[in-house]
Amino acid sequence: MPVVTFLPGYRKATVSEGGTILEAAQKAGLQMNVVCGGQGKCGKCIVQVKSGRFSFDSEKFGRVFSPEEIASGFCLACQATVGGDVHVIVPESSLIQEQKILIEGLGIETEFNPSIWKYYLELTPPTLEDPSPDLTRLLWAIQKKGGPVAEKIYAPLEVLQSAPRVLRDSGWRVTATVALVPGGYRLIDLEKGDTSKNLYGAAVDLGTTTIVVYLRSLVDGKVVGVASNYNRQISCGEDILSRVNYAKKHGLEPLQELAAESINQAITTAANNASIDRDDIYEVVVAGNTIMTHILMGIDPAYMIEEPYVPVVRRYLTTSGARVGLEVDRDAGVFIFPAVSDFIGGDIVADILSCGMAEQEEITLMVDIGTNFEVVLGNKEWMFSCAGAAGPALEGGEVLFGMRANPGAIERVSIDPATLTPSYETINHEKPRGITGSGLIDILAELLRACVIDRTGRINTSIENRRIRTGQYFPEYVVAWKGETAIGKDIVITENDIKNLIMSKASVLGACITLMNQAGITREQIDGIAFSGAFGNYINKENAIMIGLIPEVPIERIRNIGNGAVAGANIALINRKKRKVLDEIARNIAYVELNAESSFMDEYTRAAFLPHTDLGLFPKVEKFLDECRLRSREHP
Amino acid sequence: MPVVTFLPGYRKATVSEGGTILEAAQKAGLQMNVVCGGQGKCGKCIVQVKSGRFSFDSEKFGRVFSPEEIASGFCLACQATVGGDVHVIVPESSLIQEQKILIEGLGIETEFNPSIWKYYLELTPPTLEDPSPDLTRLLWAIQKKGGPVAEKIYAPLEVLQSAPRVLRDSGWRVTATVALVPGGYRLIDLEKGDTSKNLYGAAVDLGTTTIVVYLRSLVDGKVVGVASNYNRQISCGEDILSRVNYAKKHGLEPLQELAAESINQAITTAANNASIDRDDIYEVVVAGNTIMTHILMGIDPAYMIEEPYVPVVRRYLTTSGARVGLEVDRDAGVFIFPAVSDFIGGDIVADILSCGMAEQEEITLMVDIGTNFEVVLGNKEWMFSCAGAAGPALEGGEVLFGMRANPGAIERVSIDPATLTPSYETINHEKPRGITGSGLIDILAELLRACVIDRTGRINTSIENRRIRTGQYFPEYVVAWKGETAIGKDIVITENDIKNLIMSKASVLGACITLMNQAGITREQIDGIAFSGAFGNYINKENAIMIGLIPEVPIERIRNIGNGAVAGANIALINRKKRKVLDEIARNIAYVELNAESSFMDEYTRAAFLPHTDLGLFPKVEKFLDECRLRSREHP
Repeated sequence: MPVVTFLPGYRKATVSEGGTILEAAQKAGLQMNVVCGGQGKCGKCIVQVKSGRFSFDSEKFGRVFSPEEIASGFCLACQATVGGDVHVIVPESSLIQEQKILIEGLGIETEFNPSIWKYYLELTPPTLEDPSPDLTRLLWAIQKKGGPVAEKIYAPLEVLQSAPRVLRDSGWRVTATVALVPGGYRLIDLEKGDTSKNLYGAAVDLGTTTIVVYLRSLVDGKVVGVASNYNRQISCGEDILSRVNYAKKHGLEPLQELAAESINQAITTAANNASIDRDDIYEVVVAGNTIMTHILMGIDPAYMIEEPYVPVVRRYLTTSGARVGLEVDRDAGVFIFPAVSDFIGGDIVADILSCGMAEQEEITLMVDIGTNFEVVLGNKEWMFSCAGAAGPALEGGEVLFGMRANPGAIERVSIDPATLTPSYETINHEKPRGITGSGLIDILAELLRACVIDRTGRINTSIENRRIRTGQYFPEYVVAWKGETAIGKDIVITENDIKNLIMSKASVLGACITLMNQAGITREQIDGIAFSGAFGNYINKENAIMIGLIPEVPIERIRNIGNGAVAGANIALINRKKRKVLDEIARNIAYVELNAESSFMDEYTRAAFLPHTDLGLFPKVEKFLDECRLRSREHP
Repeated sequence: MPVVTFLPGYRKATVSEGGTILEAAQKAGLQMNVVCGGQGKCGKCIVQVKSGRFSFDSEKFGRVFSPEEIASGFCLACQATVGGDVHVIVPESSLIQEQKILIEGLGIETEFNPSIWKYYLELTPPTLEDPSPDLTRLLWAIQKKGGPVAEKIYAPLEVLQSAPRVLRDSGWRVTATVALVPGGYRLIDLEKGDTSKNLYGAAVDLGTTTIVVYLRSLVDGKVVGVASNYNRQISCGEDILSRVNYAKKHGLEPLQELAAESINQAITTAANNASIDRDDIYEVVVAGNTIMTHILMGIDPAYMIEEPYVPVVRRYLTTSGARVGLEVDRDAGVFIFPAVSDFIGGDIVADILSCGMAEQEEITLMVDIGTNFEVVLGNKEWMFSCAGAAGPALEGGEVLFGMRANPGAIERVSIDPATLTPSYETINHEKPRGITGSGLIDILAELLRACVIDRTGRINTSIENRRIRTGQYFPEYVVAWKGETAIGKDIVITENDIKNLIMSKASVLGACITLMNQAGITREQIDGIAFSGAFGNYINKENAIMIGLIPEVPIERIRNIGNGAVAGANIALINRKKRKVLDEIARNIAYVELNAESSFMDEYTRAAFLPHTDLGLFPKVEKFLDECRLRSREHP
């Protein structure tokens, strides 16, 4: 069988003849960038075959590669099949890189009310005069130390089985771990000596793409470690739909295991950094979307992606870490956030918890944007939610030079309205390789301000500027010249890219307005807009309004709550009282099915302008555009 | 290695040279009768070596075997070592036989309040209009069917994982099993179609020697099957002490597994007889002594047999059947009776529950006699308990021709006071092989009445009767002549046997009187004496008073509650309210440590007469003995 050798690392893998280079790369343990799941659509898995027989339909991908590139052996790993031993160069940009994952800025303020405690006990050994059973002795000591009443503590078999040895080997000096469970308390661990300081919990954001873990001491609630990790399920498909389809074919188990492993890796990293033993983690709180949490629990998510789209379970779940493969204390509990529907998952419930919407009089509009978006509008009295597909454009997909927030990505752009020369910032200040979602929004807004594009997104090619030109298929604006970049190509934004971006943002704005209509709320009544998630954290708020991504409200009312999912998980980890709030949120929130809502299509169509057909909804933008138009007339 | 062949079945086993025949027999799967655990003390494992080299210290066992027997190859399997291939005949009497196990006569009257229910549900499949999650749909249907409120039902992962398939494959016609658990309810099973009738529970008496299982429908509480089985731990030692010592050497696991297997076998027999699927057993209630239940739970009982004699746990325990190796429904619960102390176990708590003592004004004295005895005195206001070693005499051990209640055992005896000729009944009406405990008590009482023995138990050898003679070591009374028996030997009771019996009964009576003194109760204040256990069921009540096994009360106040352990387990199985009573019993009962009670030794010494030194305590016996004495003077 052909051997594929990957350079520069010389990793090798064997595939059968006719197998793809992508298959070989995955076997060799390389994390290739396959946004489309290997369908040849995203063009992210570029490799260069240096030697050996392979076949690749170069004509089909003429848009991706120049004739010179084709001649030099460039191809898409997912579409190139191997005909013998080959040597392949994998450019760094084709590998999934350490992404800028949002882990900072929790700013959580909540009471410290953990659901787990440790008690160091110095017991009096039994005597003929006091021959009470080991367990009685233990539970009374816990009660005397201020713990729960002895009768209320349930002792599971595992602890009872080890108790007599632990008690005697330690000279009756032990630490007992007690957790609050439905109906009482549970003695979940018994250790020799004083380990009362070694009590930790993990708050996990189980995202489709990334996993973020916070480790906290449950003695004082403080953060002791943070780590993030790719969701290793990416090897089974980039988006969530392709993963559910993968599970239909190959069973749920591989996906379940990858989810657990991904969390384990992040926990291990955080624990190692903090010099903590993973076995001292006694509780794991997980917020994730409904499909992700179903997969982690080993519950089939298949029925969520086909009519009538039903999850198996929506309420919060509890189980033990061991049962789902988490490498924490043997008896550690796992708390899974409840969901509202298959589309409004535990991650959004966590967002709601962390933005405080459900506990305030003020009306908040919360927006979480990724490939899919979720919008929630409400206050402590009422809440409406909806979700939809934004398309990948806002995350840099389906945009020629769009990319994830990796080093070299352009994330901020301003354009001189006179010269049309852009200034940009890249991640890590590296030479540019592409443009992130926030960069794209900036460009859109700035091109609109500079009257390079009109409100439909068309590029005014009559402007005489060498940055404005007609590319192979579409008019385009050059953001960075070949020589400035790390990729040896001009980085441009095309009219087609702009159309895709407008379609994406129109979905979000259309959804916001649909919910506002449902609730009978005008934009003036919105007390605050909260952006949740990585996307919201990096975008320029003024530009988001400028292009009509969100309704116009005074800038100071817009805030970023950051990674609301992990923030919510942290809150529920350290304050058990909030877990009750969660289930109420999940139960009381109304879900608006956009596809079933005829008015949504109208709102979407009206929102598919920059910023909207009705400029009356964007009075400040209208004023600004008028000024621009006047200015451009003055200085033609 | 030498091969040992056992006749008549030709079973074979290999042992290393110097290994015992007993080892070989156990390897070959023969259940040898080893009361002493293989120490050469009980003389029950007699075999006959027909050919081959073996060694056996015949001089040491001169009392057991005649020179002719020794010459014919008779030996004790546990003491005979193998020097090469041997052929061995195993007499039936050396094998453990189906014993007369007490399983009848429960006569339970209690409310039917099960803790588990099945609901057959015909669900409306989800639609786009009603896309609620599978679990919500299910729990609401349970609630509508009169089950617990949906929010109170916890669904464990296993059920959630199987739910979507079960629901869809069954066309949304399912049966849900719901159990009451601390803090709420638990959805423990979900099956296709209507299985609502298939709901059973098992009540188990886990005895040191025997296991009794009652299967009951939990739809109506009725008994559907009964079975009993030897406790297969017997192969690790007859008495409980030798088993704990076995565990110290070989670990707890083999004993734990044997306990579970023994219960499984009995459950399987009962289930097969009733044509029930074991997977339809959803709850198992186990009453056993403290060491037995520790072993079944896999909790080390070692600390109970050494100072200061502490159990690990005394309160009731709950776990799942799967966790302890019981082959019932995967998610079936196990309820283990609480104990009072290491000596007053769940079996005695079950006795108390089934005799009603803890719920009555009347004062009951409950006596449970085996190798060990337990005595409980009290009413609903107060209870005192104690336990002690009666020695094996009352069960036929340490008595030359004593035996268990196997076929051929003499269980009832009366003696003609004039001719001293006995009349006896044997089990299954077979030719006699030995005498059971109840037979021994009858003989003792009858010999006393006939003035063959005096109140110290000495045989009056001056009586001229061929049944009264001097044996090899002691004076003896011939119960059955060689020719009448199945064993080809005279069956006798020796003066030494009588001494052993008196010592045993003195322990029991001494304990009863000690508790009466503690409570300040006279024998007149005792409203009833309850015998629990097999022993009590077969003995003659008048004779029990005659020899002073128990305090003298009017005969009509004495009753047998039969197998109180399994009766109590049955009550707790079908009436969950009684489980709360149990823990109260276990907590409130006072335990009197006889060894620490100086007065017990005095009471024991006074009780070591027939019936007691103080005949004032046995006024009716005194009157009778006076009459006898008069009569014997009249007819010398």
